[in-house]
Amino acid sequence: MNKIITIGREFGSGGRELGKRLADILDIAYYDKEIVAEIAARTEIAEEYVERVLEKRPRTSFPITIGRSFCPVVDPCMDINNKIYAEQDGILKDMADRSDCVIVGRCADHLLRDRKPYKIFVYADMASKIARCRIKADDAKGLTDKEIKAQIKRIDKERASYYEFITGQKWGDKLNYDICVNTTDADIREVAEVLAKMI
Amino acid sequence: MNKIITIGREFGSGGRELGKRLADILDIAYYDKEIVAEIAARTEIAEEYVERVLEKRPRTSFPITIGRSFCPVVDPCMDINNKIYAEQDGILKDMADRSDCVIVGRCADHLLRDRKPYKIFVYADMASKIARCRIKADDAKGLTDKEIKAQIKRIDKERASYYEFITGQKWGDKLNYDICVNTTDADIREVAEVLAKMI
Repeated sequence: MNKIITIGREFGSGGRELGKRLADILDIAYYDKEIVAEIAARTEIAEEYVERVLEKRPRTSFPITIGRSFCPVVDPCMDINNKIYAEQDGILKDMADRSDCVIVGRCADHLLRDRKPYKIFVYADMASKIARCRIKADDAKGLTDKEIKAQIKRIDKERASYYEFITGQKWGDKLNYDICVNTTDADIREVAEVLAKMI
Repeated sequence: MNKIITIGREFGSGGRELGKRLADILDIAYYDKEIVAEIAARTEIAEEYVERVLEKRPRTSFPITIGRSFCPVVDPCMDINNKIYAEQDGILKDMADRSDCVIVGRCADHLLRDRKPYKIFVYADMASKIARCRIKADDAKGLTDKEIKAQIKRIDKERASYYEFITGQKWGDKLNYDICVNTTDADIREVAEVLAKMI
């Protein structure tokens, strides 16, 4: 069985960078945005739409096409969503079966649970996440700390909601992970080196 | 400043063994029950009583000696408790200032926060904790799984309550720790070796 490392992460905690560095050090595949692109390619649905569906818990639990001829992007149809979920599931399994890899997000810890992934959750305190967003995200440059904080909270709320919808479990609950790493004031490069040795 | 490693742990997670092994590998001091013994020696209060006070959150928040001449062990007086808490605080700081060390429990992560300890929390799923108790604890041998589970839950509830009383924070909340390690199905020896390399 291939070595699968999944990374759940709070927004601004450096989880994505950690995953990338980990994959580089271990010289294994890295999947993040690639999953969205692959789903879009297989389903012929726009990448932007796929990403939106995978970032948010759907607001409806039944097809809302009944009596309508048009499904607006802001309120996506469940049949399309279900197609995207199914593709995501299949793609994750394909990736996991292809080679050793690091997968960021996508509830991969749960969807690949029968392949026994090593499950990491990355988190940090709010001040540290705000500081990291300010350095990393171009679109955070003109925002106040309060605005960045609100954005972090909104995105994490969406992630939590989506994770619960897909897995039935609480996002960030340490019992769902093998290790939880606090990146407050940490150098992600060093954390990646240490975790690589561990894995 | 000395290297201080603090370990918070769920009952049955192997946290104590992990702390001991970590101290052995790093060849540094290890404090656990020693703290209780030291407090007892300094205050001339029975070890058993000290341990009981340090394991449970007191039920009263004011001295209950008023109008009484006797403080029963099961409902300890706050003035004695406060003496024990103060001694604990002083002893932890003495230990931390003496040499590099591993300290298990005792809210050391919080009480020594100005000394920047490396804070570990150890946890596991219930089945794994029950199995570990069955192997390690002599007094668990005659108990059913249900009874061991009830004991684990009771002890952890006391730890949580005591931690919150001393620190004002939630016990086991991952934000209070640098790393949280899931020991479900893990070999504590291996976990200790990996963490030693990390530290």
